Amino acid sequence: MTLTAVEPSADTTDEPIAEACPIAPDGMHGYISDQERYLRRINRIEGQVRGIGRMIDDERYCIDILTQISAITNALEGVALGLLEDHLRHCILDAAGSGSGAAVEAKVAEATQAIARLVRS
Amino acid sequence: MTLTAVEPSADTTDEPIAEACPIAPDGMHGYISDQERYLRRINRIEGQVRGIGRMIDDERYCIDILTQISAITNALEGVALGLLEDHLRHCILDAAGSGSGAAVEAKVAEATQAIARLVRS
Amino acid sequence: MTLTAVEPSADTTDEPIAEACPIAPDGMHGYISDQERYLRRINRIEGQVRGIGRMIDDERYCIDILTQISAITNALEGVALGLLEDHLRHCILDAAGSGSGAAVEAKVAEATQAIARLVRS
Amino acid sequence: MTLTAVEPSADTTDEPIAEACPIAPDGMHGYISDQERYLRRINRIEGQVRGIGRMIDDERYCIDILTQISAITNALEGVALGLLEDHLRHCILDAAGSGSGAAVEAKVAEATQAIARLVRS
Repeated sequence: MTLTAVEPSADTTDEPIAEACPIAPDGMHGYISDQERYLRRINRIEGQVRGIGRMIDDERYCIDILTQISAITNALEGVALGLLEDHLRHCILDAAGSGSGAAVEAKVAEATQAIARLVRS
Repeated sequence: MTLTAVEPSADTTDEPIAEACPIAPDGMHGYISDQERYLRRINRIEGQVRGIGRMIDDERYCIDILTQISAITNALEGVALGLLEDHLRHCILDAAGSGSGAAVEAKVAEATQAIARLVRS
Repeated sequence: MTLTAVEPSADTTDEPIAEACPIAPDGMHGYISDQERYLRRINRIEGQVRGIGRMIDDERYCIDILTQISAITNALEGVALGLLEDHLRHCILDAAGSGSGAAVEAKVAEATQAIARLVRS
Repeated sequence: MTLTAVEPSADTTDEPIAEACPIAPDGMHGYISDQERYLRRINRIEGQVRGIGRMIDDERYCIDILTQISAITNALEGVALGLLEDHLRHCILDAAGSGSGAAVEAKVAEATQAIARLVRS
């Protein structure tokens, strides 16, 4: 996959990622085995968002646009829940394996804050 | 604005829209005055979704991806709430002006169902 | 129904309500015809919340408590959506009937803010 | 605390709880140290729900009732997020300590489903 567009958002910096997901026992990141599947889902969501622009351009009926937005929000939440499940499996349990209570505590607090943002968004 | 990409979603059909937003007294659709602003917001959200794909491609830290997804969901909800406000203003009140109780009832039920989808998505 | 408990929340003040729902053509408030039904639903939700306290008291399994909380949240949203539908029907349309653009605008803004709180809660 | 009311909901059965939170190393359930605090929060939410019944009884302005419902939903989500954080800390990590991959997987799937219900409720 090639992503030529450069977005001015915080996620496109080239600086090294300070806190990376710990490498799982199989030498892979938490979600790498499903990486292609996640990319396909995100590609499809990107197309759905583009479709919203087209609906607004075409002055489509407001309620139909709202229905599409709800569908996109659900799809994004599905991706987020999948990533979260992978994260809980690989990252927190790796932290548990390290035996450090502080590391576990930090991971749990971080995950809970991410969940809170999902629940409240 | 030109949108050359063709998405396989339900919103790209060329068939006439059966139920259009009633024309407001000033001869414009409910949200047309803000159309350009909505398109800019949707364009920006589309770029943010593309950024998620880039983050997955780069195997960025899961929690950072979740944070971005929550931001996109919030941005989409902001667009939806704006469209809904426009809709309530123009469409329902037009229905009220028509004096038909059944038309009002249909509009209110339709709007409530759209709100329910937003609340539960 | 008698409610003897006095809660320290904002809703128990005895001061007159500045902005009441306009009286509908049939001389009733927007939701009065369903008032008993709403009270029964709220009574049931109150019992479900009390059940959560009992579950915590009994140190029930955390996930089961979370499931119950989700059920209560859904039930509360159902009540909110019902009240909102009634509100849109009776209050906004009464505002429309008054012919005052400013009154309509104020009602629409107020309703949209309430919807935003529901969507984001 | 005594809770004498018997609710007809699923959470009041007297049957033994098949799957209990594993006992933490300190011999306590995951959330027992905060049990009193959770009970106070639930008591307060119960009172807020009762306040909603009072508002409906008094035919209070619909939008004010919606505002209160959003506040209750937020409070319930706060309790849920607290319980979830405790659960992630104590239960999942206990499962990790057991060394059984299947047990970890089951706990992660269960937690993710609970989170999905929270996100979508």
